[in-house]
Amino acid sequence: MKSNEKPSRFKADELLQFATTVFAKAGIEQDKARCMAETLLESDLMGHTTHGLALLKPYLISIEQGHMTKEGQPEVIRDTGASVTWNGRRLPGAWLTHQAIDLAFERIKEQPVVTIAIQHSHHIGCLAAYPERATKKGLMMLLSCSDPGFDRVAPYGGTTGAYSPNPIAAGIPTSGLPIIFDISTSETAAGMVNQSHKSGQRLPHPWLLDNKGNATDDPATFYDPAVASTILPLGGLSTGYKGFALGLMVEAMTTALSGHGRADQPIIGWLSSVFLQIIDPDAFAGSAAFTNQMDYLVEKCLNSAVPEGKPPVRLPGQRALRLRDQYREAGVPLFPAVVEGLQDMGKVYKVMMPEEV
Amino acid sequence: MKSNEKPSRFKADELLQFATTVFAKAGIEQDKARCMAETLLESDLMGHTTHGLALLKPYLISIEQGHMTKEGQPEVIRDTGASVTWNGRRLPGAWLTHQAIDLAFERIKEQPVVTIAIQHSHHIGCLAAYPERATKKGLMMLLSCSDPGFDRVAPYGGTTGAYSPNPIAAGIPTSGLPIIFDISTSETAAGMVNQSHKSGQRLPHPWLLDNKGNATDDPATFYDPAVASTILPLGGLSTGYKGFALGLMVEAMTTALSGHGRADQPIIGWLSSVFLQIIDPDAFAGSAAFTNQMDYLVEKCLNSAVPEGKPPVRLPGQRALRLRDQYREAGVPLFPAVVEGLQDMGKVYKVMMPEEV
Repeated sequence: MKSNEKPSRFKADELLQFATTVFAKAGIEQDKARCMAETLLESDLMGHTTHGLALLKPYLISIEQGHMTKEGQPEVIRDTGASVTWNGRRLPGAWLTHQAIDLAFERIKEQPVVTIAIQHSHHIGCLAAYPERATKKGLMMLLSCSDPGFDRVAPYGGTTGAYSPNPIAAGIPTSGLPIIFDISTSETAAGMVNQSHKSGQRLPHPWLLDNKGNATDDPATFYDPAVASTILPLGGLSTGYKGFALGLMVEAMTTALSGHGRADQPIIGWLSSVFLQIIDPDAFAGSAAFTNQMDYLVEKCLNSAVPEGKPPVRLPGQRALRLRDQYREAGVPLFPAVVEGLQDMGKVYKVMMPEEV
Repeated sequence: MKSNEKPSRFKADELLQFATTVFAKAGIEQDKARCMAETLLESDLMGHTTHGLALLKPYLISIEQGHMTKEGQPEVIRDTGASVTWNGRRLPGAWLTHQAIDLAFERIKEQPVVTIAIQHSHHIGCLAAYPERATKKGLMMLLSCSDPGFDRVAPYGGTTGAYSPNPIAAGIPTSGLPIIFDISTSETAAGMVNQSHKSGQRLPHPWLLDNKGNATDDPATFYDPAVASTILPLGGLSTGYKGFALGLMVEAMTTALSGHGRADQPIIGWLSSVFLQIIDPDAFAGSAAFTNQMDYLVEKCLNSAVPEGKPPVRLPGQRALRLRDQYREAGVPLFPAVVEGLQDMGKVYKVMMPEEV
């Protein structure tokens, strides 16, 4: 994706219709097709372009390769009420995750905390697309995933990879806009390395580590077998032991709790292990006390001084939610490479591509 | 503490006896005094010297100031079975945390996940001192705390502080040594800044941010009101938005769930808000599946290549557990400033200081 090229804009509802129809024509059950389309679109609306409709074509390729299950339900491995473990049977990750959230919302009526682990999910996309469902109900959401088939993040001190970028996402309700974040526990994620590489740009910072142990900002080293650079854990050369620790924690919560991960070699196709936890503040000191603390902290952060000429402090997710309003109004910007992918797939599945606005 | 000076060694059991007696003579109930002493000693045994017996004197000063409650029980704010919320009534943090762990171990027999939030705890010390209790039982522990009275970590993009270093600790069982970590979600913690400042050293990396927005490794800037540098969030100038997000998550889990935090100004004395979660892998895909995944990952990390001349990759906590065995055998090393603090307090409370080994 050439992110330095000018995007064109499309109406959100037309993109949704297009993507839903393409996925359905590829054989995905209607409700799942729509959920996948909605989740990819939500990601573009929030400005997370690497995990938006840019994934439509890769998902369709994965479907063609037989790596995504088109219909049916997850298999229940264990259900204790407050915890559920599913085998996702390679069903679409966005649909599985939304189903898990629906189930957690049912269970949270009787439970203070509901925890769901899913193995054999297909890719769940942008984790930032989910937490607002919880914060709208005054609930807190934690969401993480790992990708057992990807191992290009190096353990701190090592130069060969062992695990995946392992994001942690959360939604935290406040009285105003919620706090929503989705951060990899590595310095960057594979999508960003790929995007920079394709556009011939350097990474913004030296987030990779070459096989001699030097940090580099050159994404080409990641694809050059002679260098085979890895992604540094969050904190890099200085405090990367912290990112490494968090990455291991996410592995434990996703692959180890769900019972499927790297140990199950060979890993075939695009797979994720997922951890979801919904926490009800009303089961603790109460929602009013919760938002009272968060509101105070938000204000304190927003009022932090900034260096001369610099923008004010932003809370995680608030820019994304504002972008979404703007894009719904003025159209969703898609980079040329993304548009090309949609056009390709429109031709293959005989679905008319929406017109630019 | 002058960490560049040579430590002297003391027998672990004699230090335990000494610290227990001093706390008891300061009026702390016997079981609480012993628990505090054990937890500080455990920290020294694991090599976490800033949170070990170095805290004995500051804790005694806090007791003298009336900021630590000497006896009694926490007040139950809410108890749903799988979740418990306590007002810790300024009781010793180590004792409260161990009590919460005991309670969680009882509850986990009937629950997949037990979550406990504590407000008004006194300082809980080194979070790495706790998770092994869970991993010995094949359980996973998450432990976090925040300090509502400390606000010298800056939100990403800002130059004035808003919150505390907000550590995340975890214990993850494997078939061999457990994974145990305790990391602040800021680049460093206040103890390290203080230690470097007192010993006239620079920080290992530019972990502070001055009021012009420049990163600095000079700890004197932290204490100079004209500069008033702040601690950068984990990730620093490059990916500090990630550490900021994690810091906010910890604030939500600790102050917001427990119902006491920064919003309750003025904060008087040394206070923590605490989050504890125990997760039973047997309530998910099972303990065997859990350790199978973690063992594989541990091996893969340990086998990561390293640059020529560099030590092999270490898993978080494993060095600390090996140090502990060694220090139990050969004596616990304490830096001169720590020994001086113990001697001072031994004189005040008329307790004989152990002899060096």
